[in-house]
Amino acid sequence: MPDASLLETFETPVDTPFMIEHVAEEFTSLCPKTGHPDFGEVRVVYEPKPANAGGQCVELKSLKMYFQSFRDEGIFYEAVTNKIRDDLAALMEPTWMRVTTDWKGRGGIRSVIRADHGPVPGHVH
Amino acid sequence: MPDASLLETFETPVDTPFMIEHVAEEFTSLCPKTGHPDFGEVRVVYEPKPANAGGQCVELKSLKMYFQSFRDEGIFYEAVTNKIRDDLAALMEPTWMRVTTDWKGRGGIRSVIRADHGPVPGHVH
Amino acid sequence: MPDASLLETFETPVDTPFMIEHVAEEFTSLCPKTGHPDFGEVRVVYEPKPANAGGQCVELKSLKMYFQSFRDEGIFYEAVTNKIRDDLAALMEPTWMRVTTDWKGRGGIRSVIRADHGPVPGHVH
Amino acid sequence: MPDASLLETFETPVDTPFMIEHVAEEFTSLCPKTGHPDFGEVRVVYEPKPANAGGQCVELKSLKMYFQSFRDEGIFYEAVTNKIRDDLAALMEPTWMRVTTDWKGRGGIRSVIRADHGPVPGHVH
Amino acid sequence: MPDASLLETFETPVDTPFMIEHVAEEFTSLCPKTGHPDFGEVRVVYEPKPANAGGQCVELKSLKMYFQSFRDEGIFYEAVTNKIRDDLAALMEPTWMRVTTDWKGRGGIRSVIRADHGPVPGHVH
Amino acid sequence: MPDASLLETFETPVDTPFMIEHVAEEFTSLCPKTGHPDFGEVRVVYEPKPANAGGQCVELKSLKMYFQSFRDEGIFYEAVTNKIRDDLAALMEPTWMRVTTDWKGRGGIRSVIRADHGPVPGHVH
Amino acid sequence: MPDASLLETFETPVDTPFMIEHVAEEFTSLCPKTGHPDFGEVRVVYEPKPANAGGQCVELKSLKMYFQSFRDEGIFYEAVTNKIRDDLAALMEPTWMRVTTDWKGRGGIRSVIRADHGPVPGHVH
Amino acid sequence: MPDASLLETFETPVDTPFMIEHVAEEFTSLCPKTGHPDFGEVRVVYEPKPANAGGQCVELKSLKMYFQSFRDEGIFYEAVTNKIRDDLAALMEPTWMRVTTDWKGRGGIRSVIRADHGPVPGHVH
Amino acid sequence: MPDASLLETFETPVDTPFMIEHVAEEFTSLCPKTGHPDFGEVRVVYEPKPANAGGQCVELKSLKMYFQSFRDEGIFYEAVTNKIRDDLAALMEPTWMRVTTDWKGRGGIRSVIRADHGPVPGHVH
Amino acid sequence: MPDASLLETFETPVDTPFMIEHVAEEFTSLCPKTGHPDFGEVRVVYEPKPANAGGQCVELKSLKMYFQSFRDEGIFYEAVTNKIRDDLAALMEPTWMRVTTDWKGRGGIRSVIRADHGPVPGHVH
Repeated sequence: MPDASLLETFETPVDTPFMIEHVAEEFTSLCPKTGHPDFGEVRVVYEPKPANAGGQCVELKSLKMYFQSFRDEGIFYEAVTNKIRDDLAALMEPTWMRVTTDWKGRGGIRSVIRADHGPVPGHVH
Repeated sequence: MPDASLLETFETPVDTPFMIEHVAEEFTSLCPKTGHPDFGEVRVVYEPKPANAGGQCVELKSLKMYFQSFRDEGIFYEAVTNKIRDDLAALMEPTWMRVTTDWKGRGGIRSVIRADHGPVPGHVH
Repeated sequence: MPDASLLETFETPVDTPFMIEHVAEEFTSLCPKTGHPDFGEVRVVYEPKPANAGGQCVELKSLKMYFQSFRDEGIFYEAVTNKIRDDLAALMEPTWMRVTTDWKGRGGIRSVIRADHGPVPGHVH
Repeated sequence: MPDASLLETFETPVDTPFMIEHVAEEFTSLCPKTGHPDFGEVRVVYEPKPANAGGQCVELKSLKMYFQSFRDEGIFYEAVTNKIRDDLAALMEPTWMRVTTDWKGRGGIRSVIRADHGPVPGHVH
Repeated sequence: MPDASLLETFETPVDTPFMIEHVAEEFTSLCPKTGHPDFGEVRVVYEPKPANAGGQCVELKSLKMYFQSFRDEGIFYEAVTNKIRDDLAALMEPTWMRVTTDWKGRGGIRSVIRADHGPVPGHVH
Repeated sequence: MPDASLLETFETPVDTPFMIEHVAEEFTSLCPKTGHPDFGEVRVVYEPKPANAGGQCVELKSLKMYFQSFRDEGIFYEAVTNKIRDDLAALMEPTWMRVTTDWKGRGGIRSVIRADHGPVPGHVH
Repeated sequence: MPDASLLETFETPVDTPFMIEHVAEEFTSLCPKTGHPDFGEVRVVYEPKPANAGGQCVELKSLKMYFQSFRDEGIFYEAVTNKIRDDLAALMEPTWMRVTTDWKGRGGIRSVIRADHGPVPGHVH
Repeated sequence: MPDASLLETFETPVDTPFMIEHVAEEFTSLCPKTGHPDFGEVRVVYEPKPANAGGQCVELKSLKMYFQSFRDEGIFYEAVTNKIRDDLAALMEPTWMRVTTDWKGRGGIRSVIRADHGPVPGHVH
Repeated sequence: MPDASLLETFETPVDTPFMIEHVAEEFTSLCPKTGHPDFGEVRVVYEPKPANAGGQCVELKSLKMYFQSFRDEGIFYEAVTNKIRDDLAALMEPTWMRVTTDWKGRGGIRSVIRADHGPVPGHVH
Repeated sequence: MPDASLLETFETPVDTPFMIEHVAEEFTSLCPKTGHPDFGEVRVVYEPKPANAGGQCVELKSLKMYFQSFRDEGIFYEAVTNKIRDDLAALMEPTWMRVTTDWKGRGGIRSVIRADHGPVPGHVH
C-alpha cells in the first residue's frame, strides 16, 4: 500500500535556487480492473525552497522505498501520478514540482501522465 | 466505420490541472482513393477540466476500440485527425487538447497532421 | 482471406546465385481468439533457382497485394508465418527461403516466428 | 524543369486552425556548377487558411510529381528552397508555411536552408 | 510463487522445423537476500518438435501468467533462468530452447544469464 | 544509360590479401514500369587479386561516374545489382566480390538484393 | 579533497558575448553514507564577462585537475553541484553559469542536479 | 594560417528573410600549447540581409577552403570560434549569425563554444 | 590495491551448462605513468563448471567490492584485464571465461583488451 | 611524413593469448590527387605473441604520435592501411593483426579498407 510515511527529508543545503530530478525507471503497480501488473517510469523534478526559508529535499533511499510501496496496489495511472505529486508536495512544500509517469503500452496504447505543483519557474526552458 | 459512441469517460480525479497523453502506435485506416491501407501513429495530449468543473477523462480501453473502428474506413489523413479531435473534444470538453497523426511514407513522402482544441496552456513548453 | 492466387512471378534474370530480401513493415491481421488486430513486420529472404533451372522471383506489387489479403483474417502468428513460407515456396521453388515475422507486443510479450524452406546456403553468414 | 503547374489542391476540410507537414526524403536535383547530382530532404509545414476563408491544401500525389520535376534541373540549394516556398505559397496562400531543405554533405560540409511564408503562429513552439 | 501449472500448450502446426521467440520485457521478482525487487527481460527462443512427432508450443497468454507468478518470489537470477528453462523444457520437450534473462543494474553491475536445452541447431547462426 | 566504359582501375598495391568496401548512399535510377525514381544505397565489397597476379582496383571517382550513369535508366532492382556485379567483375577479376543494393520502401515494402562473385574467403566472418 | 586553488583562468578574448560549455563525462566521488563510489557527468555552461569588463575563462586542464580532486571526497550530489557552481562563480564572476550533474543510477533511481548563477540570458533558448 | 581572403560570396537571391546552415564535420587545427591536433565540428547558421539591402551569402566551396586554412594553425577553441564569427560577419554583414564549434574530448572533457552576431530573430525557436 | 580475497562464491545450482555475464560500467583505476584516472567498463562472461563437478559462481556483491579495490591502483589496461581473468579463473575454475575491458579514449585513442580462460564452447556463436 | 621510428613497444605481460584493440577516431591525411584532407578512423586489433616467445605490444602514446605523422602526407586509402599493417607487423610480429580504416564520404561514396597479418585465430568469431 502506498505509504507516504516512508519518505524522509534533509535540509536544502543552499539559499540559491536549484533543481533536482530523480528518475525511477523500475516502477510497478497493479491495474485495479484486471489485477495485471503495470510497469512505468516515474520522474520527479522540483526546485526546493531555499535553506533560509526552511527548504527540504526528499532523501533518495526513502524515495525508493516509497515507490516500492506501490508494488501490490491496484491503482490507475492518473491516481499514481497525482498521489505522488500530493505526497511529495505535502512533504517538501517545494517552490515548484513536476511528476511525470510514463507507462509501457497496453493494448497498443502507451500513456504519459504529468502533474505540476506550483508555477513553472522562468528558468525552466 | 468510425464510431464515437464507443468512447467512455471517467471523472477527472483532481481539481489541480494535469496532462494526459495517449499514443496509439498501431493505427490503420484505408486510403479513400486507392483502397490501400494507411498506417500511422495517433497521439492525443490533453488537459482535462478540473473535477470541480465536471471534468471528464477518456477511458483507455474504449479509446482503443474507437481507434479500431477506423480500420475499414476510407478516409483522408486530414479527416482522421480532425474527426478524432472533434469526437474527443465533444466527449470531454477538455481545457486543451492536441491530436497528432504521423503517417508512414507513401510514394517517398511521409506526413504529419496536427489539430488543437482550445488555447495552448502556458505550462506546455 | 489470404489469397495466394494474387502472387505473380518473373523469371530470374541470371544463372549465378543471388539473394533477394523483401521487408513489409506494415502487416496486419486479426487475432483469432479476440478479434483484435495484430501488427507486425514480415521479412522474406530467398535465393531463387538459377535462370537456367527455370528460376522464378515473386513480383513486388503482387507480394504487397498478397500481404494485404491477410487484413481481415483471424489467424495465429505461427500460421501466418508457415502459410507465407508455404505459399511462396510453392510459387517459386527457391533454392532457399526464410520467412520471419516480428510482432508488436501483446500483454508485455513480443514474439518473433521464423520458418525456413531448404538448406541454408553456405554464403549466408 | 520545376513545374508548378503539376500542383493540385483540395479544399481545407475545417474552419479550425491545424497544421500539415509533408517530408520528402528522396529529393534530387543537379548542381548548376558541376552537373553532379545533389540529394536532400524537403520538409514542408504549413497551416492552411480556414475553410470559411477559402483555404486550400496541396494534394499529396501532385506534390510528389512537382518534387520529381526538379530531377534534371541545375539549381542551387537556396533557389530550390525559395522556389518551393514561392510556388506553394502562391498555390495555397496559407496562414503560415515553412520549407526546409536538408542536403547531403559535399566536400565535408552539409547544409540546411529554411524559408518561411507569413508570421510563425503562436502555437508553433 | 512460480507456478508451472499455469502453462498451457497447443499442437505445433507443421512438420517442418521453425523457430519461435517470445520476449517479456516486464519481468520482476524479488532479491532473496534483500527483499528488494529485481527487474529484467526474459527471452525464450525454441524450435518445437515437428507436428508428426507430437510437438507442442507454449500458449502466449499462459506464458504471461506464468511469468507473473514470479512477482512475489525471492529468487536468484540463476535460479529464475534455470527454472524457466526446466519448466518449459518439461512442458514442450522442444528440439532446442534457449532462455536468456537480462537484469537491470544493481550496484553498478548488470547481469545476463543464459541456459540452453538441447543442442544448438545448425541453422541458428 | 549505365556505362561500364566509365570505370577505371589502378594496380593493387600489395601481394597480401586485403579487402576494400565502397558505399554509395545516393544511388538513383528509374522504375521501368512506372517511370518513377527509385532511390537506394549500393555497397561493393571485394578482395582484389594480389599485385603479383596482376590485381586491379576500381578507381573511386570513376566508380562515382559509373553509378551516376544509371540516373536516367529504367531498370529493375535485380538487374541493377547483377549488372554492377558483372561490370565490376569483368573489370577487376577480383578474388571475391559482393554487391548489395538496399532500396527505399515502395508501397510499404523495402528490398535488399545481393549478388556475389567468387567464393567467400574464409576470413570474411 | 575538492581544491578550488587548482583552478586557473585566462582572459576572455573578446568584448562580444559568447558561450562556453565543458562536459566532463568521467567524474567520480564517494557517497558520504556508504563510502561506495558515485559516477556522473558534470556539465558547465557559462557566458564570461566581456574582455573590457575584465572577463575571465577557466583554463581547461586546471578544470580537469579540479574535478579529479573530488575523487576521494565523501560528498552528496547536491553538495557537489553547488560547490562547483560556487567555486567557478567566485573564480570567474561570469554573466551567467549553469552547472548540471547527471548521476548513474543507484537502487534503480538516477538523479540530475542543476544550479545556476545569474539570470538566464535571452539568447539561451 | 587562417585566411579570410579565401572567402567568396554570392548575392542573396530573395528579399524575404530565410536561414542558411552549414555544418563542417571535419575541422582540425592545432593546440597552441602542445602542438597536438584538435578535431571538431563547425556549425554556421545565419540569416542573410535581403537582396534589396545588398545581402550576401558565403559561397560553399570557398567556405571549405577557408576552414582548411586552419589546419596548421596553433589556436585555442575560443579564438577559432570568434575568428570565424568575425571573418564571416565582416564578409556578409548578415542580419544574424551563430557560429558553434563542438570539440572532441581532451583529458575526458569535451567542449562547445558558441558566438553570435546580431540579435536572435524571433522566428528562431 | 586489487584484492582477490574480497571475492566470494556460491555453488553452481545445476548440472547443465549455462552462461553468466556481469557488466560493470563504472570501473576506474589510475594510469601508472601519469597518475591520472582511467575509466572503463569490465565485462565478465563465463560458463561455470557443473554442480556435480563442484562448480562455483562468483557472488555479485563481492565482485563489486573486488572491482572497487582497483580504484587507487596504478595499473596498465593489459594488466587489469589479465589480473581479473587470473583472479576469477583461480577462484571458480570455470569451463570457459572471457574478460573484456573497454576504456574511454585517451589522446583520441580508445582501447579494448580481451583475455580468455579455457576453450570457447561450441554454443558461443 | 609517416614515421615508423616513432613507434615503441613494451613486453607482452602474459603467456596466455589475449587480444588488444586500439581505435583512433581522429585520423587525417591528404589526398595525393587533390591535396584536400581526408578524415577517417583507424582500428588496430591484434593478438601479441606470448611473453615466453618474446611478444611485444605497441605503446599507446607512441602509436598516437605515429598516427599523427600521416597528417601532412599525400597518400591513398589503400596505402595508409597497408603501411600501418606493415609497420606494426614489423614492429611487433604479432600472432595475428587486422588494420581497418573507415573514411568519411567523398563525392557521396564512403570507403572501408581492411588488411590482415597472419591467420585469423579460432576464437575471433
